[in-house]
Amino acid sequence: MLRQLLQTSSKRLPITKTSKLASSPATISFTSRFTSRFMTTSSTTNLKPLDSSKVKIFPKEVKSTPLPNEKLVFGQTFTDHMLCIEYDAAKGWADPVIKPYGPLSLDPSTCVFHYAFELFEGMKAYRSPDNKITMFRPDKNMERMNKSADRICLPTFDNEELIKLIGKLIEQDKHLVPQGQGYSLYIRPTMIGTSEGLGVHTPDKAMIFVICSPVGPYYKTGFKAVRLEATDYACRAWPGGVGDKKLGANYAPCIKPQLEAASRGYQQNLWLFGPNKNITEVGTMNVFFAFKNEETGKKELVTAPLDGTILEGVTRDSILQLAREKLDPKEWDVNERYTSIYEVEEKASKGLLLEAFGAGTAAVVSPIKEIGWKGNDISVPLLPGEQSGPLSKSIAKWIADIQYGKVQKDNWSKVVADLN
Amino acid sequence: MLRQLLQTSSKRLPITKTSKLASSPATISFTSRFTSRFMTTSSTTNLKPLDSSKVKIFPKEVKSTPLPNEKLVFGQTFTDHMLCIEYDAAKGWADPVIKPYGPLSLDPSTCVFHYAFELFEGMKAYRSPDNKITMFRPDKNMERMNKSADRICLPTFDNEELIKLIGKLIEQDKHLVPQGQGYSLYIRPTMIGTSEGLGVHTPDKAMIFVICSPVGPYYKTGFKAVRLEATDYACRAWPGGVGDKKLGANYAPCIKPQLEAASRGYQQNLWLFGPNKNITEVGTMNVFFAFKNEETGKKELVTAPLDGTILEGVTRDSILQLAREKLDPKEWDVNERYTSIYEVEEKASKGLLLEAFGAGTAAVVSPIKEIGWKGNDISVPLLPGEQSGPLSKSIAKWIADIQYGKVQKDNWSKVVADLN
Repeated sequence: MLRQLLQTSSKRLPITKTSKLASSPATISFTSRFTSRFMTTSSTTNLKPLDSSKVKIFPKEVKSTPLPNEKLVFGQTFTDHMLCIEYDAAKGWADPVIKPYGPLSLDPSTCVFHYAFELFEGMKAYRSPDNKITMFRPDKNMERMNKSADRICLPTFDNEELIKLIGKLIEQDKHLVPQGQGYSLYIRPTMIGTSEGLGVHTPDKAMIFVICSPVGPYYKTGFKAVRLEATDYACRAWPGGVGDKKLGANYAPCIKPQLEAASRGYQQNLWLFGPNKNITEVGTMNVFFAFKNEETGKKELVTAPLDGTILEGVTRDSILQLAREKLDPKEWDVNERYTSIYEVEEKASKGLLLEAFGAGTAAVVSPIKEIGWKGNDISVPLLPGEQSGPLSKSIAKWIADIQYGKVQKDNWSKVVADLN
Repeated sequence: MLRQLLQTSSKRLPITKTSKLASSPATISFTSRFTSRFMTTSSTTNLKPLDSSKVKIFPKEVKSTPLPNEKLVFGQTFTDHMLCIEYDAAKGWADPVIKPYGPLSLDPSTCVFHYAFELFEGMKAYRSPDNKITMFRPDKNMERMNKSADRICLPTFDNEELIKLIGKLIEQDKHLVPQGQGYSLYIRPTMIGTSEGLGVHTPDKAMIFVICSPVGPYYKTGFKAVRLEATDYACRAWPGGVGDKKLGANYAPCIKPQLEAASRGYQQNLWLFGPNKNITEVGTMNVFFAFKNEETGKKELVTAPLDGTILEGVTRDSILQLAREKLDPKEWDVNERYTSIYEVEEKASKGLLLEAFGAGTAAVVSPIKEIGWKGNDISVPLLPGEQSGPLSKSIAKWIADIQYGKVQKDNWSKVVADLN
């Protein structure tokens, strides 16, 4: 019921409701705002769609020289250009602009500063062996970005058009896409509400901007398995909330629990939910566990189901698909199901916990070696002398081979620029 | 436990943990960030505190003429000046600046745009009969603002110093504080994280800015009682979340459920929580119910307790204090306790539901006349021919008399400027 109701976009509400609302005894500011919103959306057919062919490019006068690979720090340096597209509820999407990277100038009453009308995506582009630049599954990110936008009443857009525009942005700065295994261009599509004024309502102005940061491998010298603190005193996401969307609102509240965990020597939180202490995510990543069945000896790869509290991770989805294709079904079950910290604790005590890892765009696979829970540390096995288990290692390689163009897989890699 | 843990500020973590963390196998970007944060905070004693005496004032060349009262729209026009105070984790609070109202220029990688490092307050200043300008209980707002900041690892500050600075800001634009019953200056203190870069961590830069909007009465022609939809498919706040703090993160997610309610003819959501369908808040306000006891005939004023999911409203607190002082305890009980939609429904069916109203800074008291629940409307009594019940009306007058200086109450009104 939640999903059904929340997926009915405000923009699709019948216009016949307007007069009813306008005459209902709403508070003045609310009614007038709401009515004007309805009026606007009634003319949806005349709104300009996002159109990549209309892009205006203002190139930077002098191109930057790429930084040496060893100086690349995640999200700290950016390419020469950014993509900006403004939205106005009365007109639709303006012509996209690619221009030199530079500051945004916004009125202090802009709604992004007050009510967190903001969402983002994280995706990467890679150099392939034939010197092309490819993006990894950008359609999945665009799909999720539109779901995020719809959930907080920001405007939606055509997926393919934004992918094309991001391609043009990368084309503009293709000399800054770093080379080498583990290196990539991190792409940050962002949407913010830009309505001015302090009323809390659907933004009538918004902006998509996309910036790009050349990045190195998350683990510069191979995996470093992490220690997690199982966290039940703070809660990242809940039913009827927005934890499955990539909204800014989901991030700031997680820093303090992370610092709490860090003060006790753990790098991240393993988020638990509800009376059963179900495991939902780790830090800002999805999480997987590998178990062995006590009776059958068969192995099982498990991650939490998409029940509205779990981010619909692109890496999560990729891992599930690859695991179902590549793992021998006689040896492995691959399941989206709830698993609790109690189950993990019990399995570990019986030697049936095989592996655990986080999964996300930044690190791809992040092996876990210990989980602090009620004063004890649950040990997760690693390969002798290594910082990951065998499955984590295989999965990371499966994905990297596709990302770096060594292996072709469906339409997962999309060519966006050519360096030849 | 939640409170205890979350109230231990990161800034107070012992520095001895640093070396342990630096040597723990954290992910590289995390460890270096975290260590540098700890390094910075170890020198807390050298950090400059917020100091109102250091304010630099850059007056606007030509002062604005006040708009006629009838043209004032909530949060749409602003006074001539704004207050800005920048924070740097290595230095502390910079000298405050009062300057002409104007846009903020921020790098597109600034953390406020991506991870919702943002919080705000809403407060009002009024003209008193002796032509002074007073703020209503600003100490309560500053207390809450510091709690909000601490919860998302933004810097805290001295309450009194920010009140003095807001006073200086109002002094600068005192000719724009509107006159007349129901008119006031709405004040919006805001704090945003201004660190640049895409890593998710404690911001090492932040900014307080304060803007002011001259506003008219919420109800221009007297009360307009509202219709609410009791909402259990979406959830505003959760234990272990941040629903008791005034963070931007709590607002954007509430728009879509509001539009859903509006599409069915209701102005706002009455937020329910948990299997018991406890009533928590209405829209972005606290909520009160008045019941009659079936056995004793005694009346009861009820609002939800501050359990971590309820905003600690200043109006809520003022109403509770005034009700406890002014209502005859032989006739009335004033209780902070859970009440469910089932209780409200049952009381209404027996004629024991006397009144219901929202409470917040903008409207002060917002009477409720109907509550939609499972396809039926629960009627809330109003005075014959009027848009409020008798208690709502009395409470609104008690508070207005204090706000407009007709009645003195403790230190609730603080003089910040003098027009004589």
